[in-house]
Amino acid sequence: MMRHLIVLLCAWATWAYASDPPTYEISPIGWVKKADGRTTIEIDKAYEPAMLGLDQFESIWVLYWFDRNDNPEKRAILQVHPRRNLENPLRGVFATRAPVRPNLIALSRCRILSIEGTTIEIDGIDAFPDTPVIDIKP
Amino acid sequence: MMRHLIVLLCAWATWAYASDPPTYEISPIGWVKKADGRTTIEIDKAYEPAMLGLDQFESIWVLYWFDRNDNPEKRAILQVHPRRNLENPLRGVFATRAPVRPNLIALSRCRILSIEGTTIEIDGIDAFPDTPVIDIKP
Repeated sequence: MMRHLIVLLCAWATWAYASDPPTYEISPIGWVKKADGRTTIEIDKAYEPAMLGLDQFESIWVLYWFDRNDNPEKRAILQVHPRRNLENPLRGVFATRAPVRPNLIALSRCRILSIEGTTIEIDGIDAFPDTPVIDIKP
Repeated sequence: MMRHLIVLLCAWATWAYASDPPTYEISPIGWVKKADGRTTIEIDKAYEPAMLGLDQFESIWVLYWFDRNDNPEKRAILQVHPRRNLENPLRGVFATRAPVRPNLIALSRCRILSIEGTTIEIDGIDAFPDTPVIDIKP
């Protein structure tokens, strides 16, 4: 009897563990800054070695985090009226670039104007100042 | 004396909290599947509403997670020899598409072949089967 109970408990634990969705952790590698008419990405000093060779590119993909929408309510929104215009028919967030989505990752192609130390000056980006940057790709 | 100590403690706590880098949580919204010569993205049922309108696009950006490299050692690698070829000079990971990087986000442009329910058939993707998909964008 006791043995059956233990087997049942183990089976339940396995099921409960397996059905829990995995989560992954990300951290900022830098920040969007806007000042004096310039837009820059300030890479954290710790990540300076990851910039080696970046000066060979004219443009980069900048991945950033819609941190102002990082709450369970906004992340549960699955459909939107594009550009917040009620006249636009509802669209699934995967069919839009909306800043509300389950994982709040934003993607922009940016032109590099200059690189000095850990400061990358870009032509512009549709992000608030102090937005966390999470990856850079060529 | 006690009051001074409390003020000092509060100042320290504020500093410690402020200097701790923020982390953000992401979860899979689907999975890469490969079978019978077909490559599909199986979107989790819960996210089906987020697919509304996706059938209007020929191609999508697929963001996925290099889950096999999700350990502190791999995420601390900041420079690589591109394509694992020692003859290629070292490059910072932000100047490569290497699957080791601080935040293990991968990005691929994929052509949609068909959409049926929560199954998106694509032309192909450079990802292992059962790789977690974290976002879809037009």
